[in-house]
Amino acid sequence: MTKNKLLGELVAETFGTAILVLLGVGAVINVGLAPRMASAAGWNWLTINFGWCFAVVVAVYVVGGVSGGHLNPAVTLAMAVKRDFPWSKVIPFWVAQTIGAFLGAAVLFLVYQDGLVAAGLPNVWTGGPGSVFSQAWWGDTAVRHAVGSYSILTATIAEGVGTAVLLWGILAAFDAKNLGVGANLGPLFVGFAVLAVGISLGGPSGYMINPARDFGPRVFATLIGTKGMFDGIWWLVGPIIGPLAGGLFGIFTYDLCVTKWLPQKADTVVQKEAAS
Amino acid sequence: MTKNKLLGELVAETFGTAILVLLGVGAVINVGLAPRMASAAGWNWLTINFGWCFAVVVAVYVVGGVSGGHLNPAVTLAMAVKRDFPWSKVIPFWVAQTIGAFLGAAVLFLVYQDGLVAAGLPNVWTGGPGSVFSQAWWGDTAVRHAVGSYSILTATIAEGVGTAVLLWGILAAFDAKNLGVGANLGPLFVGFAVLAVGISLGGPSGYMINPARDFGPRVFATLIGTKGMFDGIWWLVGPIIGPLAGGLFGIFTYDLCVTKWLPQKADTVVQKEAAS
Amino acid sequence: MTKNKLLGELVAETFGTAILVLLGVGAVINVGLAPRMASAAGWNWLTINFGWCFAVVVAVYVVGGVSGGHLNPAVTLAMAVKRDFPWSKVIPFWVAQTIGAFLGAAVLFLVYQDGLVAAGLPNVWTGGPGSVFSQAWWGDTAVRHAVGSYSILTATIAEGVGTAVLLWGILAAFDAKNLGVGANLGPLFVGFAVLAVGISLGGPSGYMINPARDFGPRVFATLIGTKGMFDGIWWLVGPIIGPLAGGLFGIFTYDLCVTKWLPQKADTVVQKEAAS
Amino acid sequence: MTKNKLLGELVAETFGTAILVLLGVGAVINVGLAPRMASAAGWNWLTINFGWCFAVVVAVYVVGGVSGGHLNPAVTLAMAVKRDFPWSKVIPFWVAQTIGAFLGAAVLFLVYQDGLVAAGLPNVWTGGPGSVFSQAWWGDTAVRHAVGSYSILTATIAEGVGTAVLLWGILAAFDAKNLGVGANLGPLFVGFAVLAVGISLGGPSGYMINPARDFGPRVFATLIGTKGMFDGIWWLVGPIIGPLAGGLFGIFTYDLCVTKWLPQKADTVVQKEAAS
Repeated sequence: MTKNKLLGELVAETFGTAILVLLGVGAVINVGLAPRMASAAGWNWLTINFGWCFAVVVAVYVVGGVSGGHLNPAVTLAMAVKRDFPWSKVIPFWVAQTIGAFLGAAVLFLVYQDGLVAAGLPNVWTGGPGSVFSQAWWGDTAVRHAVGSYSILTATIAEGVGTAVLLWGILAAFDAKNLGVGANLGPLFVGFAVLAVGISLGGPSGYMINPARDFGPRVFATLIGTKGMFDGIWWLVGPIIGPLAGGLFGIFTYDLCVTKWLPQKADTVVQKEAAS
Repeated sequence: MTKNKLLGELVAETFGTAILVLLGVGAVINVGLAPRMASAAGWNWLTINFGWCFAVVVAVYVVGGVSGGHLNPAVTLAMAVKRDFPWSKVIPFWVAQTIGAFLGAAVLFLVYQDGLVAAGLPNVWTGGPGSVFSQAWWGDTAVRHAVGSYSILTATIAEGVGTAVLLWGILAAFDAKNLGVGANLGPLFVGFAVLAVGISLGGPSGYMINPARDFGPRVFATLIGTKGMFDGIWWLVGPIIGPLAGGLFGIFTYDLCVTKWLPQKADTVVQKEAAS
Repeated sequence: MTKNKLLGELVAETFGTAILVLLGVGAVINVGLAPRMASAAGWNWLTINFGWCFAVVVAVYVVGGVSGGHLNPAVTLAMAVKRDFPWSKVIPFWVAQTIGAFLGAAVLFLVYQDGLVAAGLPNVWTGGPGSVFSQAWWGDTAVRHAVGSYSILTATIAEGVGTAVLLWGILAAFDAKNLGVGANLGPLFVGFAVLAVGISLGGPSGYMINPARDFGPRVFATLIGTKGMFDGIWWLVGPIIGPLAGGLFGIFTYDLCVTKWLPQKADTVVQKEAAS
Repeated sequence: MTKNKLLGELVAETFGTAILVLLGVGAVINVGLAPRMASAAGWNWLTINFGWCFAVVVAVYVVGGVSGGHLNPAVTLAMAVKRDFPWSKVIPFWVAQTIGAFLGAAVLFLVYQDGLVAAGLPNVWTGGPGSVFSQAWWGDTAVRHAVGSYSILTATIAEGVGTAVLLWGILAAFDAKNLGVGANLGPLFVGFAVLAVGISLGGPSGYMINPARDFGPRVFATLIGTKGMFDGIWWLVGPIIGPLAGGLFGIFTYDLCVTKWLPQKADTVVQKEAAS
């Protein structure tokens, strides 16, 4: 029975991460391929931010009741380190999340294939050097304050801090000892935390804040012929190590500055639901 | 009494779908006729997306207590196939929804008639070839990545995948065994699912994701003299077959990846309210 | 005691309508005076729509517990005709609402006086002919589809339909027999209904949908020297008769298409709170 | 024990205000450094408004269970004057909030350092004369209605009125005698109140409405070499005295127009949680 339960959780993590990428990266592609792209003013950052917000909301509601809706290796790791999530499930969850992200990208390709092919299969799938995002953000238009590219170090810090904010949002939203929301509205506030990260900290790196969300589509893009997806070390340092470290930073700071001072130790709903 | 109950449900589906189209298509017209239309940057996709989101929210709250608030033949079909919604009600619901969509377009014409007449009665009513939407989206402005039109196949896939996401959102929001929301907030999350579909998957086809929402206004537009509304096969394949098939895909995948693994079989609130 | 209760209600209606106009018209002024105004693309309709949405939300939450938070003569009239709101309170509520709207405009003038004076005291206070809104919307920029001005008839229809949608939203949000929301979230959905009206039906007339919201600031603008505020019949027909009639249309259609078919007659929360 | 409790509250206020500034000022920097800045149309006010809204939401949820989540000296002062918040805690709270705001700015510098350095370390940290905000808002682009700068008096009035609206929102959202929201959703509505202030009253001064939010980053900016942060009297009058006075105005008007007329005296949740 426990094995069957784990299977269900892995199916749910795969399905949920596929929905997350389908809707989140879909927003990037939709904005990136539209005529609005023709002018700097048309690059509608807020549209992308809301796209990711509700991608998270939909994805977590759909599968949260089965697996807890981590959908993110950085969340799974943090829960294992500090919330009794079983270590034996960490790798299986990571694999399921990454497969889900790959599948989400694949479905997205079916939806936008004509536009993507016509545009020469640009890297709409991830952030960082060479991505459509970085071109719009960092420098191929006349900018008033000649803003240069961000270094890998700075962009990785942005990934880490962004993931810490995500963890703060998750932990608070489900923390019954804190102001954890009722009426099963927790996932909505996880979406709001992602919205806040995007609007406020997304500039330098495009806020991957999730290793699976970046790595799965990166592999998919390579398979369909987009060049340079694994050039340099960004793909490893920025969207994988950055979020994993940032998630740990987030949960440690939350426990240090919040959990410690609450009436009694908080057991998060996420942890309860996700633990076997 | 049961017959009277059905009558009430059909009145509610008609009224609700009229509100849906009044507010949803109204957003498209409002953006489409405004001076913002003058530049590519002005085509405000996010405004339209929020317009449809809250069109759904208002419409479902207004009539949901009577009919369950399907307002969409694809939802009705999916509920009949997998949720015990009575097959005998499917055609009546479809007819009521389509009549409602027609009426919503008619009221909208009263609101925007001067602007629509001055603009030469363009097709602001639907997506697909020839619509104002497709002109802005697919090619009459200079675009950086020369993005061509989407094929009917790709656009139909977009309709199907979008409708699947809609079903995932509906099923999850009302699924008491999953993280179904409390405080009667389910309809809000249906609106959020539609928002996510629009932002993320709406590009290739304009996300009709509802046969009645497309067909009713399409008939109305023909009656007032807009040309070419039924040219080609798009009107049948894209916004009718696509959503019907996508809705089924959505409910089957939800049950396969989620329902099966939840503690016990979920009876959705929608189904309970809608069933006689 | 009853007299004292009425006094409290009138204070609350005055205070709440002042907040409504302060935040709602404030959004119009903020957008209208900003450099964004310099280009058609910059006229940010969605910003104004969200401004009015949360103006309603804040205003109703602040005073709803005292007076029911009508803040709108059209709502008060509809409640008197169909929901047992005492007729003896209708005129006092109307007067309080209009005084509140006037005071809200006055406070707003203190906030934006430098910008308004520098701009020559334009009509940022209301919609209709001569307003800043109508200039941006109806014709002083090059528009692709040469859209002409809207006639008074069409714009008045837009006011009436918009107010009907507002009533549908109010009635549904507080209707315990329908899907009325819990956790005291009703006012949020009234805000969402106003958001939907603005995005989708606001084009032809600027969606006053509230006689006090238009008349109070119109008097204030006349006092500070803005010209032509009462030229023609628009001020009477569009924002006063239109909403009053539309509100009645809204509540009658709701009762006909929804209330009649619900399990039992719905007593709205608004009515309960507002009735003496 | 009480001392330990105070320590926890101060840690929480510091942590929460750091999150507030990290996400709120982060939105300003993200918009300010992006290529969108290149054109007036690109200055996306709504993106900044949503950024601050969800900065508040995340920050208050994270620490609200420990300290009540004031995060703002103007809120703390108002609670001391009218809600029995102990006067002995006012100065400690103010210091903690200001330190937190400073730390939030410091983390933000790590995230955006490359862009900020490349742009010449402009004042993205605060509003008022010399800030990036004021340049975009007040005059370095061609504007249709030649709008001049706002005087310190007018801008200070804007700060005061904005802070009053913030207090009205806080007091109403947590007022169980009024329509205070359930399901722990109060902090969301505080965010909505801030959203409304930004959209509607933010033009003349950039809506600091929080002395710590302005002063902490102002000190940080001075330390990293931005010039002129303390020129003139704006930094004292506008973002410190304005909000402190406005907060008192807000709570007095709320009690006069609302609390007095509610069934019985309202004890706000904020006050309950924050009091020792």
